[in-house]
Amino acid sequence: MEDSLTRPSSPAGLSCYMAVSQLLGLTVIAMTGAWMGQYRGGIAWESALQFNVHPLCMIIGMVFLQGDGVIAVFDYHRKKGFADMYSLHSWCGITAFSLYFIQWLMGFSFFLFPGTSFSLRSRYKPQHVFFGVFLLVLSIATCLLGIKELLLFNIQATYSSFVPEGILANVLGLLLIVFGLVIGYILTRDEWKRPPLAEELALSMDFKTLTKGESPSGSQ
Amino acid sequence: MEDSLTRPSSPAGLSCYMAVSQLLGLTVIAMTGAWMGQYRGGIAWESALQFNVHPLCMIIGMVFLQGDGVIAVFDYHRKKGFADMYSLHSWCGITAFSLYFIQWLMGFSFFLFPGTSFSLRSRYKPQHVFFGVFLLVLSIATCLLGIKELLLFNIQATYSSFVPEGILANVLGLLLIVFGLVIGYILTRDEWKRPPLAEELALSMDFKTLTKGESPSGSQ
Repeated sequence: MEDSLTRPSSPAGLSCYMAVSQLLGLTVIAMTGAWMGQYRGGIAWESALQFNVHPLCMIIGMVFLQGDGVIAVFDYHRKKGFADMYSLHSWCGITAFSLYFIQWLMGFSFFLFPGTSFSLRSRYKPQHVFFGVFLLVLSIATCLLGIKELLLFNIQATYSSFVPEGILANVLGLLLIVFGLVIGYILTRDEWKRPPLAEELALSMDFKTLTKGESPSGSQ
Repeated sequence: MEDSLTRPSSPAGLSCYMAVSQLLGLTVIAMTGAWMGQYRGGIAWESALQFNVHPLCMIIGMVFLQGDGVIAVFDYHRKKGFADMYSLHSWCGITAFSLYFIQWLMGFSFFLFPGTSFSLRSRYKPQHVFFGVFLLVLSIATCLLGIKELLLFNIQATYSSFVPEGILANVLGLLLIVFGLVIGYILTRDEWKRPPLAEELALSMDFKTLTKGESPSGSQ
């Protein structure tokens, strides 16, 4: 523990995994762009092309950022007279969106609000980390459902003939899964967790150090 | 650490979470059975009902056990003249099935094969745990894709009118996600990890104890 106050160099392997995860992320965005551009007529805020904003923004946004994709699909449905919020994809998407908002509010309240006690912060921190990973997984599952929905709405008759659009979309789904796998692996490795910095210890931000003497059974 | 050799009573909260997870699991099985029985004509190995073996067995099996579900769908496709392995659902399913088999082979080789060194075992154990959780998540994502596929193959015209079958299937999808959430939460809590037993320490099965002196940066 004596070197926990210094700023360590990146652990062996982590840089390589990070590079792979970012490459996968960019590949997923490029493939989604290629799908929308090549097979679904491109991207626009008006006309039938408005729908195409949704998958592209959700993959850039719910997996990377997040925002315009939800508005695009509701506005598109309104113009087309389609029903909203009936599909499993929409239920999962709006759940993920709402939980991201709650996660943000909780994070704000526990970590930035000055009145929160260190003990409360230390108890909430592992929950925040767990639900962050869960939200990424839920977002990817929602993307998979959206891919399936888009394929069955558009190419149900030819999907089983292994047409290029179907194969591109299937590979995109598998790459989203591999992306989540690599990010999940990086996030859950104990040896890749950043040791606390000196200024965080001084600010009592290192919650684990504060509580690590506690016994799980509470008998000590 | 002085009570790590005794068999501790279950930590507070864990029993309650376990009960909730098992209740969710049984509810998911019951709901899938109700869906197949109420709306899809029931379960049989012959006729169109053979397909219904697949979702029921996969939810009991890939999330709980695993087996007959894969055979049922290939046999059903062969009799109907349907193409195999073209959909994202089938790609994810066969990936999960293959990875479960590899996970089983790796677990067997590292933990049961007598020639494997303790150092190799200790390095493999966290990978095995991580990929176990990943396989559960991938199985649940595959179930969600299967639910979506079954709905769009059967009730695409009425799905957007919030028909009972669509709502039942959507709720089933959400419950599968909540089931994975509760199991994932239980599996990743440090304070709920079982301390090593005396006989495991004697057999050098407690890999963490053997390696916990190692520095992440390898500089000590």
